[in-house]
Amino acid sequence: MASAPSAAGEDSLIARYFRPIATNPGAFNLDDDAAALKPSGDDIVVTTDAIVEGVHFLPDDPPDTIARKALRANLSDLAAKGAVPAGFVLTLALRNADEAWLKPFAAALGEDATQFGCPLLGGDTVSTPGPLMISITAFGRVPPGKMVHRSGAKPGDRVMVTGTIGDAALGLAVLRGGKVHAAAGDAAAREFLTSRYRVPQPRVALAEIIREYASAAMDVSDGLAGDLTKLCGVSGVSAVIDLESIPRSAAAKDLLARRIVGIEALIAGGDDYEILCTIPEDQVEAFAQAAQRAGVPVSSIGMAVAGSAFPKFIDGEGKEIALERLSYSHF
Amino acid sequence: MASAPSAAGEDSLIARYFRPIATNPGAFNLDDDAAALKPSGDDIVVTTDAIVEGVHFLPDDPPDTIARKALRANLSDLAAKGAVPAGFVLTLALRNADEAWLKPFAAALGEDATQFGCPLLGGDTVSTPGPLMISITAFGRVPPGKMVHRSGAKPGDRVMVTGTIGDAALGLAVLRGGKVHAAAGDAAAREFLTSRYRVPQPRVALAEIIREYASAAMDVSDGLAGDLTKLCGVSGVSAVIDLESIPRSAAAKDLLARRIVGIEALIAGGDDYEILCTIPEDQVEAFAQAAQRAGVPVSSIGMAVAGSAFPKFIDGEGKEIALERLSYSHF
Repeated sequence: MASAPSAAGEDSLIARYFRPIATNPGAFNLDDDAAALKPSGDDIVVTTDAIVEGVHFLPDDPPDTIARKALRANLSDLAAKGAVPAGFVLTLALRNADEAWLKPFAAALGEDATQFGCPLLGGDTVSTPGPLMISITAFGRVPPGKMVHRSGAKPGDRVMVTGTIGDAALGLAVLRGGKVHAAAGDAAAREFLTSRYRVPQPRVALAEIIREYASAAMDVSDGLAGDLTKLCGVSGVSAVIDLESIPRSAAAKDLLARRIVGIEALIAGGDDYEILCTIPEDQVEAFAQAAQRAGVPVSSIGMAVAGSAFPKFIDGEGKEIALERLSYSHF
Repeated sequence: MASAPSAAGEDSLIARYFRPIATNPGAFNLDDDAAALKPSGDDIVVTTDAIVEGVHFLPDDPPDTIARKALRANLSDLAAKGAVPAGFVLTLALRNADEAWLKPFAAALGEDATQFGCPLLGGDTVSTPGPLMISITAFGRVPPGKMVHRSGAKPGDRVMVTGTIGDAALGLAVLRGGKVHAAAGDAAAREFLTSRYRVPQPRVALAEIIREYASAAMDVSDGLAGDLTKLCGVSGVSAVIDLESIPRSAAAKDLLARRIVGIEALIAGGDDYEILCTIPEDQVEAFAQAAQRAGVPVSSIGMAVAGSAFPKFIDGEGKEIALERLSYSHF
């Protein structure tokens, strides 16, 4: 008789942890080599974002927050493109199949998939001798041709952002210890900042509003200054930004006021996962009202202007600030 | 005046190496956060496959073969699902931006994208302190509901495979040195086997034929024995396989005949990237003829039978062979 080896380890871990959260019919119960997205007449918007241990998250970050960050980074991209989530596939590179890590990871991923209406459709699990890596490709839907681009900003458009900027970069600084950790107010302030680093709040609720009002949009993930520079570059415009009007949390305001950090730490740090967009001047009020109804705070921070110069950042005394760096870069 | 930092390294390497090969309109010149797939009324089939240095390829494998393997592993999945390629996104985790590696990698990726009609649509490039990793999510199209599943095999269906089985596993053994390298015939035989390991030949030409004739199909990537076991499990059938009829190359036959390796090395080794399928008996001849017209060799290797037992592998003397392992597993 042929031997009857037990199910391969990889299949077993997929069955145990990921099949229970892959309930969408297009996932085929994770029994197949591929998933299927049904046609709806919409364009399928595709985005992919990977996070690497030691680069995008810390080795001792809790597995549930790593799962949420991996998915939410992609959801943030979809929202900025005006796309409604349709599903995602997951590539997981693991050193070993550690139940104590996988169980909370998969549970949190499943919760977020449900909360944001973005079902797990499939994936690949591989072993690596190196750092953990999670790569997600997410899909969203927009009516044909209606994806919002980085390239549509026009001189005179208002530059706007959601939420507050810089908290995640400060949260990372808190987690790394040092002066920001020591100075960051009380435990509640530290907890607020680190949670902003670990668990982004993707602006999924704003997707259709962005589609209706924005001339250009992108998510802020590598630093507001650098991301704005990219948006302006592709749109063929420049911008003038009023630094004082960049929205900041109470914790960030406190650290700035006490000169523990400068404004550059906020606007050139990464991981905000807020939306940066340009809105034609005559639409700003309607956009702001729609965003408010959706429960998403938005702030005007400046204006797109003609020209190809790098955006200018103006301080409270009307002086232009020279930034040493604009954003995080991997290389 | 604001400082004008040079373009971030990540954007610069994307512009230099990947923009030239991202010519599809849905890639938006890689200037955006996302790509778009146009609606065609078809289902979008989604597959994702990652390869890791030291696990799926060797650290000194040439970069052009690594690129081809990463894409072709996904193209093989699409073909086995009956899907015609529509595009892919790439996640690249690199230790550094090494031009001598990136240039041939991107060039080969672009060549394969053109050859197989599967354009680069977007991606993410991240740094890692660990091994190189390439994760690709590929898209294909099938008429609604027509994706070919693992689950449709019926008792009495013929079990068939494309090409030859086991060459890639022998190629890996050659690259690792040792007895297979020493015994593997002449330089041409070694070159044949290692090229089968490094550069799979995805059966894209068979996609529509699989869709027309196969009751079930999957690509053989983790070892024929294990992959057949999975297909049978999901289909709720067993199978009887005639080991002598499993197609093998001249180089593999030679190593088997001289008892350098046993049959298990061929059918439990990975990386074949051939298609395993089941064909209703009355369709076998038409399928074989269509495959021949498409230039893809196919072989009948056994029969699906009723039952839930593991597939049986029968040798030339009619004896059942016990396999110690069925396939490669990551964990």
